[in-house]
Amino acid sequence: MHDGILLIVSAPSGAGKTSLVQALLERDPGLGRSVSATTRAPRPGERDGVHYHFLSVDTFRAELAAGGFLEHAEVFGNLYGTRAADVRRDCTPGRGLILEIDWQGARQVRACFPASVGVFILPPSAPELERRLRTRGTDSDAVIARRLAQAREDCAHWEEYDYVVVNDRFETAVADLAAVVGAERLRSRRQLGLPACLDGDLLAI
Amino acid sequence: MHDGILLIVSAPSGAGKTSLVQALLERDPGLGRSVSATTRAPRPGERDGVHYHFLSVDTFRAELAAGGFLEHAEVFGNLYGTRAADVRRDCTPGRGLILEIDWQGARQVRACFPASVGVFILPPSAPELERRLRTRGTDSDAVIARRLAQAREDCAHWEEYDYVVVNDRFETAVADLAAVVGAERLRSRRQLGLPACLDGDLLAI
Repeated sequence: MHDGILLIVSAPSGAGKTSLVQALLERDPGLGRSVSATTRAPRPGERDGVHYHFLSVDTFRAELAAGGFLEHAEVFGNLYGTRAADVRRDCTPGRGLILEIDWQGARQVRACFPASVGVFILPPSAPELERRLRTRGTDSDAVIARRLAQAREDCAHWEEYDYVVVNDRFETAVADLAAVVGAERLRSRRQLGLPACLDGDLLAI
Repeated sequence: MHDGILLIVSAPSGAGKTSLVQALLERDPGLGRSVSATTRAPRPGERDGVHYHFLSVDTFRAELAAGGFLEHAEVFGNLYGTRAADVRRDCTPGRGLILEIDWQGARQVRACFPASVGVFILPPSAPELERRLRTRGTDSDAVIARRLAQAREDCAHWEEYDYVVVNDRFETAVADLAAVVGAERLRSRRQLGLPACLDGDLLAI
């Protein structure tokens, strides 16, 4: 049995993070996804409690003042945060919990959970990133330009993460994420006590 | 492109290390296996330069005195060692080199290569280990008893390794080893310079 794995996944907007995490979750029943709280308005199809906990600014600030957030950040004028209670409830031995947060949030979580694992997802190139942002079709040119500029800034933080995955071929990137999770489960320092095969057996000389 | 990965694989005798490493090598053309030098006599089917470099005691000691070994150990009265020149030649960027050595050798290699990755392979239980040692059929009861005692001692060092893999189902254990290699290739600190997708592109603000 390994300890609960807190997996931080960050990426610039348009790198494909959400789809990759979704595919990983479908492949691996031992993983869950933390639902962030946010003050931004839901996009079409987004449901409260599933994609985000959609909070009013007042509610968010009250929870924040009460120390209820493990990390929080303001992005494009909206607040985002991870509730500490959710992580405590879901990141349990034998399980993994995925936090989809940005590099600012990752820094805060790393400070509280040094054993957390950080993965940064990169698009294969800047032109491909722009193409993906345009294909999504929900944003104006001005928003896309702002997102591209933000993406360049975000990418500068890739070295703060334990692993870097390039999302060129989607299936390869999912397999890469699965390998990271698989390997982290095998880490000696994550084993709670002795591996079962050693317990009172091989080590009993 | 990642730096050369030096993968140390250790296990008690009979845990299935050699078969697992062989299966991993067949799956992954990016990996090679270091051929150790030894003074022990070849077993049936073992070829010089393939399974081991079979050396006389005098030759081994001369190379050792000249600083030619990265690690060496005496096991059951025989000398075993890894030639430093072989590792320098084969552990190159983009590749991985597997060293099958014991915990004593692993300690020596770790001291020279802190970025090396250690995997300890465990059998599922002591009775199963004994069964495997007997099935091999090449050793007498006295040798098997000595190997079992040695196995218990070896297993006590599992925590010195980065990862622990239990060889219960063979295919699962091979997949576990593959996940470790796959994840290590994605480590940020192993990337030589920027990932290609960032080079003069996304980071050019």
